[in-house]
Amino acid sequence: MLLLAQKSKNMELNKVKIIGFDADDTLWVNETYFRQSEAVFFDLLSEFASRDDLAKELLATEIANLELYGYGIKAFVLSMLETAMHIAGNDLPIQTVGKIIELGRHQLNQPVTLINNIQLVLASLSKKYKLIVVTKGDLLDQERKLQSSGLLPYFHHIEVVSEKKVADYLRIFKRLDILPSEFVMIGNSIKSDILPILECGASAIHIPFHCTWEHEHVDVTISDAGFYQFEQIHEIIPLLLP
Amino acid sequence: MLLLAQKSKNMELNKVKIIGFDADDTLWVNETYFRQSEAVFFDLLSEFASRDDLAKELLATEIANLELYGYGIKAFVLSMLETAMHIAGNDLPIQTVGKIIELGRHQLNQPVTLINNIQLVLASLSKKYKLIVVTKGDLLDQERKLQSSGLLPYFHHIEVVSEKKVADYLRIFKRLDILPSEFVMIGNSIKSDILPILECGASAIHIPFHCTWEHEHVDVTISDAGFYQFEQIHEIIPLLLP
Repeated sequence: MLLLAQKSKNMELNKVKIIGFDADDTLWVNETYFRQSEAVFFDLLSEFASRDDLAKELLATEIANLELYGYGIKAFVLSMLETAMHIAGNDLPIQTVGKIIELGRHQLNQPVTLINNIQLVLASLSKKYKLIVVTKGDLLDQERKLQSSGLLPYFHHIEVVSEKKVADYLRIFKRLDILPSEFVMIGNSIKSDILPILECGASAIHIPFHCTWEHEHVDVTISDAGFYQFEQIHEIIPLLLP
Repeated sequence: MLLLAQKSKNMELNKVKIIGFDADDTLWVNETYFRQSEAVFFDLLSEFASRDDLAKELLATEIANLELYGYGIKAFVLSMLETAMHIAGNDLPIQTVGKIIELGRHQLNQPVTLINNIQLVLASLSKKYKLIVVTKGDLLDQERKLQSSGLLPYFHHIEVVSEKKVADYLRIFKRLDILPSEFVMIGNSIKSDILPILECGASAIHIPFHCTWEHEHVDVTISDAGFYQFEQIHEIIPLLLP
Protein backbone atom coordinates (compact mmCIF):
# COMPACT_ATOMS: atom_id res chain seq x y z
CA MET A 1 0.00 0.00 0.00
CA LEU A 2 2.76 2.34 0.97
CA LEU A 3 4.67 1.26 -2.07
CA LEU A 4 1.66 2.03 -4.26
CA ALA A 5 1.31 5.46 -2.74
CA GLN A 6 5.01 6.07 -3.29
CA LYS A 7 4.71 4.93 -6.89
CA SER A 8 1.76 7.16 -7.68
CA LYS A 9 3.64 9.95 -5.98
CA ASN A 10 6.68 9.43 -8.14
CA MET A 11 4.44 9.65 -11.17
CA GLU A 12 3.48 13.15 -10.04
CA LEU A 13 7.11 14.09 -10.53
CA ASN A 14 7.40 12.42 -13.93
CA LYS A 15 6.61 15.68 -15.71
CA VAL A 16 9.13 17.77 -13.80
CA LYS A 17 11.59 19.65 -16.02
CA ILE A 18 12.86 22.38 -13.73
CA ILE A 19 13.86 22.16 -10.07
CA GLY A 20 13.88 25.33 -7.98
CA PHE A 21 16.17 25.51 -4.97
CA ASP A 22 15.77 27.94 -2.14
CA ALA A 23 19.21 29.36 -1.28
CA ASP A 24 19.62 30.29 2.38
CA ASP A 25 19.55 27.21 4.65
CA THR A 26 18.87 24.94 1.68
CA LEU A 27 22.14 25.35 -0.27
CA TRP A 28 24.19 26.90 2.52
CA VAL A 29 24.00 27.79 6.21
CA ASN A 30 22.43 31.20 6.82
CA GLU A 31 20.08 31.42 9.79
CA THR A 32 22.88 30.27 12.08
CA TYR A 33 24.81 33.46 11.27
CA PHE A 34 21.77 35.62 12.04
CA ARG A 35 21.45 33.84 15.41
CA GLN A 36 25.16 34.48 16.10
CA SER A 37 24.82 38.19 15.30
CA GLU A 38 21.70 38.38 17.46
CA ALA A 39 23.54 36.80 20.40
CA VAL A 40 26.24 39.50 20.18
CA PHE A 41 23.55 42.17 19.79
CA PHE A 42 21.79 40.98 22.97
CA ASP A 43 25.10 41.11 24.85
CA LEU A 44 25.81 44.63 23.59
CA LEU A 45 22.44 45.83 24.91
CA SER A 46 22.36 43.72 28.08
CA GLU A 47 22.57 46.74 30.41
CA PHE A 48 19.37 48.14 28.92
CA ALA A 49 17.05 45.14 28.68
CA SER A 50 16.79 41.39 29.16
CA ARG A 51 17.61 39.00 26.35
CA ASP A 52 13.94 38.07 26.01
CA ASP A 53 12.73 41.66 25.80
CA LEU A 54 15.42 42.48 23.26
CA ALA A 55 14.50 39.43 21.18
CA LYS A 56 10.83 40.37 21.23
CA GLU A 57 11.51 44.00 20.31
CA LEU A 58 13.95 43.05 17.54
CA LEU A 59 11.51 40.58 15.97
CA ALA A 60 8.69 43.14 16.11
CA THR A 61 10.93 45.76 14.49
CA GLU A 62 12.06 43.37 11.76
CA ILE A 63 8.48 42.41 10.91
CA ALA A 64 7.33 46.03 10.95
CA ASN A 65 10.23 46.89 8.62
CA LEU A 66 9.75 44.00 6.17
CA GLU A 67 7.62 46.02 3.79
CA LEU A 68 10.05 48.94 3.77
CA TYR A 69 13.41 47.16 4.00
CA GLY A 70 12.75 43.65 2.67
CA TYR A 71 14.96 40.69 3.61
CA GLY A 72 18.70 40.36 4.00
CA ILE A 73 21.56 41.49 6.20
CA LYS A 74 21.38 45.24 5.48
CA ALA A 75 17.72 45.26 6.54
CA PHE A 76 18.70 43.27 9.64
CA VAL A 77 21.40 45.80 10.60
CA LEU A 78 18.99 48.72 10.25
CA SER A 79 16.42 46.88 12.37
CA MET A 80 19.04 46.16 15.07
CA LEU A 81 19.99 49.85 15.11
CA GLU A 82 16.37 50.95 15.39
CA THR A 83 15.73 48.42 18.17
CA ALA A 84 18.83 49.58 20.08
CA MET A 85 17.77 53.21 19.84
CA HIS A 86 14.23 52.43 20.85
CA ILE A 87 15.34 50.42 23.89
CA ALA A 88 18.26 52.56 25.09
CA GLY A 89 17.13 55.96 23.84
CA ASN A 90 19.73 58.70 24.16
CA ASP A 91 21.73 56.52 26.56
CA LEU A 92 22.84 54.31 23.68
CA PRO A 93 26.64 54.70 23.43
CA ILE A 94 27.74 55.75 19.96
CA GLN A 95 30.32 52.94 20.09
CA THR A 96 27.47 50.43 20.19
CA VAL A 97 26.16 51.82 16.89
CA GLY A 98 29.57 51.15 15.38
CA LYS A 99 29.62 47.63 16.80
CA ILE A 100 26.19 46.83 15.34
CA ILE A 101 27.26 48.04 11.90
CA GLU A 102 30.41 45.96 12.28
CA LEU A 103 28.24 42.90 13.09
CA GLY A 104 26.54 43.34 9.72
CA ARG A 105 29.81 43.75 7.85
CA HIS A 106 31.16 40.65 9.55
CA GLN A 107 28.06 38.67 8.64
CA LEU A 108 28.22 39.82 5.00
CA ASN A 109 31.79 38.55 4.92
CA GLN A 110 31.05 35.14 6.42
CA PRO A 111 32.45 32.24 4.43
CA VAL A 112 29.89 30.08 2.67
CA THR A 113 29.25 26.84 4.56
CA LEU A 114 27.54 24.36 2.27
CA ILE A 115 24.74 22.08 3.45
CA ASN A 116 26.03 18.47 3.65
CA ASN A 117 26.07 16.65 0.30
CA ILE A 118 24.52 19.56 -1.61
CA GLN A 119 27.23 19.53 -4.30
CA LEU A 120 26.70 15.82 -4.94
CA VAL A 121 22.93 16.30 -5.15
CA LEU A 122 23.19 19.21 -7.60
CA ALA A 123 25.74 17.41 -9.77
CA SER A 124 23.42 14.40 -10.06
CA LEU A 125 20.20 16.31 -10.67
CA SER A 126 21.71 18.76 -13.15
CA LYS A 127 22.22 15.88 -15.61
CA LYS A 128 18.49 15.39 -15.97
CA TYR A 129 16.89 18.69 -14.90
CA LYS A 130 17.34 22.40 -15.36
CA LEU A 131 18.15 23.77 -11.91
CA ILE A 132 17.41 27.32 -10.79
CA VAL A 133 17.75 29.24 -7.53
CA VAL A 134 14.64 31.00 -6.22
CA THR A 135 15.49 33.38 -3.40
CA LYS A 136 14.12 36.44 -1.68
CA GLY A 137 17.45 37.41 -0.18
CA ASP A 138 19.62 40.32 -1.20
CA LEU A 139 20.69 39.84 -4.85
CA LEU A 140 24.31 40.92 -4.40
CA ASP A 141 24.73 38.82 -1.28
CA GLN A 142 23.16 35.74 -2.91
CA GLU A 143 25.27 36.11 -6.06
CA ARG A 144 28.42 36.39 -3.98
CA LYS A 145 27.54 33.26 -2.03
CA LEU A 146 26.70 31.34 -5.19
CA GLN A 147 29.99 32.42 -6.74
CA SER A 148 32.17 31.53 -3.78
CA SER A 149 30.24 28.32 -3.04
CA GLY A 150 31.35 26.72 -6.29
CA LEU A 151 27.69 25.82 -6.97
CA LEU A 152 27.20 28.35 -9.78
CA PRO A 153 27.90 25.90 -12.66
CA TYR A 154 24.96 23.72 -11.66
CA PHE A 155 22.37 26.49 -11.99
CA HIS A 156 20.79 27.90 -15.10
CA HIS A 157 20.02 31.20 -13.40
CA ILE A 158 18.86 32.90 -10.20
CA GLU A 159 15.32 34.16 -9.71
CA VAL A 160 15.33 36.88 -7.08
CA VAL A 161 11.87 37.73 -5.78
CA SER A 162 10.83 40.22 -3.13
CA GLU A 163 8.30 37.74 -1.75
CA LYS A 164 7.65 34.04 -2.33
CA LYS A 165 3.91 34.14 -2.72
CA VAL A 166 1.63 32.40 -5.20
CA ALA A 167 1.72 35.30 -7.66
CA ASP A 168 5.53 35.39 -7.57
CA TYR A 169 5.79 31.70 -8.43
CA LEU A 170 3.17 31.98 -11.18
CA ARG A 171 5.21 34.81 -12.69
CA ILE A 172 8.29 32.58 -12.67
CA PHE A 173 6.41 29.71 -14.39
CA LYS A 174 5.18 32.14 -17.04
CA ARG A 175 8.67 33.46 -17.64
CA LEU A 176 10.10 29.93 -17.81
CA ASP A 177 7.22 28.96 -20.08
CA ILE A 178 6.35 25.86 -18.03
CA LEU A 179 3.27 24.40 -16.36
CA PRO A 180 3.21 24.12 -12.54
CA SER A 181 3.30 20.33 -12.93
CA GLU A 182 6.70 20.68 -14.59
CA PHE A 183 8.22 22.35 -11.52
CA VAL A 184 9.32 21.16 -8.12
CA MET A 185 10.56 23.50 -5.40
CA ILE A 186 13.01 22.42 -2.70
CA GLY A 187 13.44 24.46 0.46
CA ASN A 188 13.46 24.73 4.23
CA SER A 189 10.58 27.17 4.72
CA ILE A 190 7.06 25.73 4.80
CA LYS A 191 5.68 29.26 4.47
CA SER A 192 7.78 30.40 1.52
CA ASP A 193 8.96 27.30 -0.33
CA ILE A 194 6.13 24.82 0.21
CA LEU A 195 2.61 26.20 0.79
CA PRO A 196 2.45 28.72 -2.10
CA ILE A 197 4.04 26.15 -4.44
CA LEU A 198 1.41 23.52 -3.61
CA GLU A 199 -1.30 26.16 -4.05
CA CYS A 200 0.04 26.72 -7.58
CA GLY A 201 -0.32 23.01 -8.34
CA ALA A 202 3.43 22.38 -8.45
CA SER A 203 5.32 19.91 -6.25
CA ALA A 204 7.36 20.81 -3.19
CA ILE A 205 10.03 19.05 -1.15
CA HIS A 206 10.62 20.22 2.40
CA ILE A 207 14.07 19.75 3.95
CA PRO A 208 13.93 21.41 7.38
CA PHE A 209 16.95 23.35 8.64
CA HIS A 210 17.68 23.02 12.36
CA CYS A 211 16.75 26.63 13.01
CA THR A 212 14.11 28.75 11.30
CA TRP A 213 13.49 32.48 11.67
CA GLU A 214 10.42 32.87 13.84
CA HIS A 215 8.60 34.91 11.19
CA GLU A 216 8.93 31.99 8.73
CA HIS A 217 7.56 29.46 11.19
CA VAL A 218 4.09 27.99 10.58
CA ASP A 219 2.27 25.11 12.21
CA VAL A 220 0.45 22.99 9.65
CA THR A 221 -0.13 19.43 8.63
CA ILE A 222 0.14 19.07 4.88
CA SER A 223 -1.59 16.33 2.96
CA ASP A 224 -1.03 17.05 -0.68
CA ALA A 225 -0.05 14.59 -3.39
CA GLY A 226 2.73 16.92 -4.47
CA PHE A 227 4.28 17.29 -1.01
CA TYR A 228 7.41 15.47 0.15
CA GLN A 229 9.55 15.83 3.24
CA PHE A 230 13.01 14.52 4.05
CA GLU A 231 15.54 15.09 6.77
CA GLN A 232 18.60 15.34 4.53
CA ILE A 233 18.98 16.79 1.05
CA HIS A 234 20.60 13.63 -0.41
CA GLU A 235 17.39 11.70 0.27
CA ILE A 236 15.71 13.45 -2.66
CA ILE A 237 17.94 11.64 -5.17
CA PRO A 238 15.98 8.33 -5.35
CA LEU A 239 12.77 10.37 -5.70
CA LEU A 240 13.98 12.51 -8.58
CA LEU A 241 16.32 10.02 -10.25
CA PRO A 242 14.41 6.77 -9.73
CA MET B 1 24.53 62.57 -46.15
CA LEU B 2 23.10 62.96 -42.70
CA LEU B 3 19.88 61.43 -43.90
CA LEU B 4 21.76 58.44 -45.26
CA ALA B 5 23.52 57.96 -41.95
CA GLN B 6 20.20 58.19 -40.17
CA LYS B 7 18.70 55.65 -42.52
CA SER B 8 21.46 53.14 -42.09
CA LYS B 9 21.23 53.75 -38.38
CA ASN B 10 17.55 53.00 -38.35
CA MET B 11 18.27 49.78 -40.16
CA GLU B 12 20.47 48.78 -37.22
CA LEU B 13 17.33 48.90 -35.11
CA ASN B 14 15.21 46.94 -37.59
CA LYS B 15 15.98 43.68 -35.84
CA VAL B 16 15.14 44.92 -32.34
CA LYS B 17 12.56 42.81 -30.52
CA ILE B 18 13.14 43.72 -26.90
CA ILE B 19 13.76 47.13 -25.37
CA GLY B 20 15.44 47.33 -21.97
CA PHE B 21 14.78 50.36 -19.79
CA ASP B 22 16.95 51.44 -16.94
CA ALA B 23 14.70 52.35 -13.99
CA ASP B 24 16.14 55.07 -11.74
CA ASP B 25 16.36 58.44 -13.53
CA THR B 26 15.10 56.89 -16.77
CA LEU B 27 11.54 55.93 -15.74
CA TRP B 28 11.36 58.04 -12.60
CA VAL B 29 13.31 60.62 -10.62
CA ASN B 30 15.82 59.07 -8.23
CA GLU B 31 19.19 60.80 -7.99
CA THR B 32 17.43 64.00 -6.96
CA TYR B 33 16.23 62.27 -3.75
CA PHE B 34 19.76 61.07 -2.96
CA ARG B 35 20.99 64.65 -3.38
CA GLN B 36 18.23 65.88 -1.03
CA SER B 37 19.15 63.32 1.63
CA GLU B 38 22.82 64.22 1.24
CA ALA B 39 22.05 67.91 1.75
CA VAL B 40 20.31 67.12 5.06
CA PHE B 41 23.18 64.79 6.01
CA PHE B 42 25.74 67.55 5.39
CA ASP B 43 23.69 69.92 7.58
CA LEU B 44 23.48 67.35 10.37
CA LEU B 45 27.26 66.98 10.41
CA SER B 46 28.13 70.64 9.74
CA GLU B 47 29.70 71.16 13.18
CA PHE B 48 32.22 68.39 12.47
CA ALA B 49 33.35 69.05 8.89
CA SER B 50 32.79 71.22 5.84
CA ARG B 51 30.28 70.26 3.19
CA ASP B 52 33.11 69.47 0.75
CA ASP B 53 34.98 67.23 3.17
CA LEU B 54 31.79 65.41 4.07
CA ALA B 55 30.91 64.93 0.40
CA LYS B 56 34.37 63.56 -0.34
CA GLU B 57 34.33 61.20 2.65
CA LEU B 58 30.79 59.98 1.89
CA LEU B 59 31.61 59.25 -1.75
CA ALA B 60 34.78 57.38 -0.76
CA THR B 61 32.82 55.34 1.79
CA GLU B 62 30.07 54.53 -0.71
CA ILE B 63 32.57 53.35 -3.33
CA ALA B 64 34.52 51.31 -0.77
CA ASN B 65 31.24 49.71 0.34
CA LEU B 66 29.88 48.97 -3.14
CA GLU B 67 31.24 45.45 -3.21
CA LEU B 68 29.87 44.63 0.24
CA TYR B 69 26.59 46.58 0.25
CA GLY B 70 25.70 46.99 -3.42
CA TYR B 71 23.42 49.81 -4.62
CA GLY B 72 20.25 51.25 -3.16
CA ILE B 73 18.99 53.29 -0.24
CA LYS B 74 19.82 50.81 2.56
CA ALA B 75 23.45 50.72 1.41
CA PHE B 76 23.38 54.54 1.26
CA VAL B 77 22.10 54.81 4.86
CA LEU B 78 24.81 52.47 6.15
CA SER B 79 27.46 54.46 4.28
CA MET B 80 26.12 57.74 5.75
CA LEU B 81 26.28 56.23 9.25
CA GLU B 82 29.84 54.98 8.73
CA THR B 83 30.89 58.36 7.34
CA ALA B 84 29.32 60.20 10.29
CA MET B 85 31.09 57.95 12.80
CA HIS B 86 34.38 58.25 11.00
CA ILE B 87 34.17 62.05 10.87
CA ALA B 88 32.70 62.77 14.32
CA GLY B 89 34.03 59.77 16.23
CA ASN B 90 32.62 59.40 19.73
CA ASP B 91 31.33 62.97 19.60
CA LEU B 92 28.59 61.93 17.21
CA PRO B 93 25.27 62.51 19.04
CA ILE B 94 23.12 59.40 19.15
CA GLN B 95 20.20 61.54 17.94
CA THR B 96 22.07 62.12 14.69
CA VAL B 97 22.19 58.36 14.12
CA GLY B 98 18.41 58.30 14.47
CA LYS B 99 18.05 61.21 12.06
CA ILE B 100 20.21 59.50 9.43
CA ILE B 101 18.14 56.31 9.66
CA GLU B 102 15.02 58.47 9.39
CA LEU B 103 16.46 60.07 6.22
CA GLY B 104 16.63 56.60 4.67
CA ARG B 105 13.10 55.69 5.72
CA HIS B 106 11.85 58.98 4.31
CA GLN B 107 13.65 58.37 1.03
CA LEU B 108 12.26 54.83 0.75
CA ASN B 109 8.79 56.32 1.18
CA GLN B 110 9.19 59.05 -1.43
CA PRO B 111 6.38 59.18 -3.98
CA VAL B 112 7.30 58.10 -7.48
CA THR B 113 7.81 61.07 -9.76
CA LEU B 114 7.68 59.94 -13.39
CA ILE B 115 10.01 61.30 -16.04
CA ASN B 116 8.05 63.54 -18.43
CA ASN B 117 6.11 61.65 -21.12
CA ILE B 118 7.39 58.24 -20.03
CA GLN B 119 3.92 56.72 -19.87
CA LEU B 120 3.14 57.85 -23.41
CA VAL B 121 6.45 56.46 -24.68
CA LEU B 122 5.94 53.07 -23.01
CA ALA B 123 2.34 52.81 -24.19
CA SER B 124 3.44 53.43 -27.80
CA LEU B 125 6.47 51.15 -27.78
CA SER B 126 4.75 48.27 -25.98
CA LYS B 127 2.53 47.76 -29.03
CA LYS B 128 5.47 46.71 -31.16
CA TYR B 129 8.18 45.58 -28.70
CA LYS B 130 8.54 43.51 -25.57
CA LEU B 131 9.67 45.94 -22.86
CA ILE B 132 11.71 44.95 -19.82
CA VAL B 133 13.29 46.83 -16.91
CA VAL B 134 16.99 46.26 -16.31
CA THR B 135 18.07 47.67 -12.97
CA LYS B 136 20.79 47.25 -10.40
CA GLY B 137 18.79 48.90 -7.63
CA ASP B 138 17.22 47.19 -4.66
CA LEU B 139 14.62 44.68 -5.90
CA LEU B 140 11.96 45.46 -3.31
CA ASP B 141 12.36 49.20 -3.78
CA GLN B 142 12.23 48.93 -7.58
CA GLU B 143 9.16 46.67 -7.50
CA ARG B 144 7.38 49.09 -5.19
CA LYS B 145 8.17 52.01 -7.48
CA LEU B 146 7.06 50.10 -10.56
CA GLN B 147 3.85 49.14 -8.82
CA SER B 148 2.96 52.61 -7.59
CA SER B 149 4.11 54.27 -10.82
CA GLY B 150 1.36 52.63 -12.83
CA LEU B 151 4.01 51.56 -15.37
CA LEU B 152 3.91 47.87 -14.46
CA PRO B 153 1.44 46.82 -17.23
CA TYR B 154 3.86 47.95 -19.94
CA PHE B 155 6.67 45.66 -18.84
CA HIS B 156 7.09 41.95 -19.44
CA HIS B 157 9.34 41.58 -16.40
CA ILE B 158 12.15 43.12 -14.34
CA GLU B 159 15.75 41.98 -14.62
CA VAL B 160 17.56 42.87 -11.41
CA VAL B 161 21.34 42.62 -11.72
CA SER B 162 24.01 43.34 -9.14
CA GLU B 163 26.15 45.03 -11.78
CA LYS B 164 25.50 46.19 -15.33
CA LYS B 165 28.60 44.83 -16.98
CA VAL B 166 29.08 43.02 -20.28
CA ALA B 167 28.72 39.58 -18.67
CA ASP B 168 25.47 40.62 -16.97
CA TYR B 169 23.92 41.76 -20.24
CA LEU B 170 25.10 38.64 -22.08
CA ARG B 171 23.44 36.55 -19.39
CA ILE B 172 20.17 38.44 -19.96
CA PHE B 173 20.34 37.90 -23.73
CA LYS B 174 20.92 34.21 -23.16
CA ARG B 175 17.99 33.96 -20.79
CA LEU B 176 15.74 35.90 -23.20
CA ASP B 177 17.05 33.74 -26.02
CA ILE B 178 17.86 36.73 -28.27
CA LEU B 179 20.85 38.03 -30.19
CA PRO B 180 22.45 41.32 -29.09
CA SER B 181 21.23 42.86 -32.36
CA GLU B 182 17.68 42.21 -31.22
CA PHE B 183 18.08 44.34 -28.10
CA VAL B 184 18.26 48.06 -27.43
CA MET B 185 18.95 49.50 -23.99
CA ILE B 186 17.69 52.93 -22.90
CA GLY B 187 19.20 54.67 -19.90
CA ASN B 188 20.83 57.69 -18.32
CA SER B 189 24.17 56.18 -17.34
CA ILE B 190 26.88 56.02 -19.99
CA LYS B 191 28.87 53.67 -17.76
CA SER B 192 26.08 51.19 -16.96
CA ASP B 193 23.47 51.48 -19.70
CA ILE B 194 25.51 52.39 -22.78
CA LEU B 195 29.17 51.28 -22.91
CA PRO B 196 28.73 47.60 -21.90
CA ILE B 197 25.69 47.31 -24.19
CA LEU B 198 27.66 48.59 -27.20
CA GLU B 199 30.49 46.23 -26.31
CA CYS B 200 27.98 43.36 -26.52
CA GLY B 201 27.01 44.44 -30.03
CA ALA B 202 23.55 45.64 -29.01
CA SER B 203 22.19 49.16 -29.50
CA ALA B 204 21.95 51.82 -26.81
CA ILE B 205 20.05 55.07 -26.43
CA HIS B 206 21.35 57.61 -23.94
CA ILE B 207 18.89 60.05 -22.33
CA PRO B 208 20.89 62.05 -19.79
CA PHE B 209 19.32 62.96 -16.44
CA HIS B 210 20.19 66.41 -15.08
CA CYS B 211 22.20 64.94 -12.23
CA THR B 212 24.33 61.81 -12.19
CA TRP B 213 26.00 60.13 -9.23
CA GLU B 214 29.68 60.98 -9.42
CA HIS B 215 30.67 57.31 -9.43
CA GLU B 216 28.59 56.74 -12.60
CA HIS B 217 30.17 59.67 -14.42
CA VAL B 218 32.52 58.96 -17.33
CA ASP B 219 34.04 61.24 -19.92
CA VAL B 220 33.97 59.65 -23.35
CA THR B 221 33.12 60.38 -26.95
CA ILE B 222 31.20 57.51 -28.46
CA SER B 223 31.18 56.76 -32.16
CA ASP B 224 29.33 53.53 -32.61
CA ALA B 225 26.70 52.73 -35.20
CA GLY B 226 24.43 51.42 -32.45
CA PHE B 227 24.64 54.54 -30.26
CA TYR B 228 21.94 57.22 -30.06
CA GLN B 229 21.51 60.18 -27.77
CA PHE B 230 18.50 62.38 -27.10
CA GLU B 231 17.60 65.03 -24.58
CA GLN B 232 14.06 63.86 -23.89
CA ILE B 233 12.62 60.36 -23.76
CA HIS B 234 9.79 61.09 -26.23
CA GLU B 235 12.37 61.77 -28.95
CA ILE B 236 13.02 58.04 -29.24
CA ILE B 237 9.57 57.41 -30.71
CA PRO B 238 10.34 58.36 -34.34
CA LEU B 239 13.48 56.23 -34.14
CA LEU B 240 11.78 53.09 -32.86
CA LEU B 241 8.40 53.53 -34.52
CA PRO B 242 9.45 55.04 -37.88
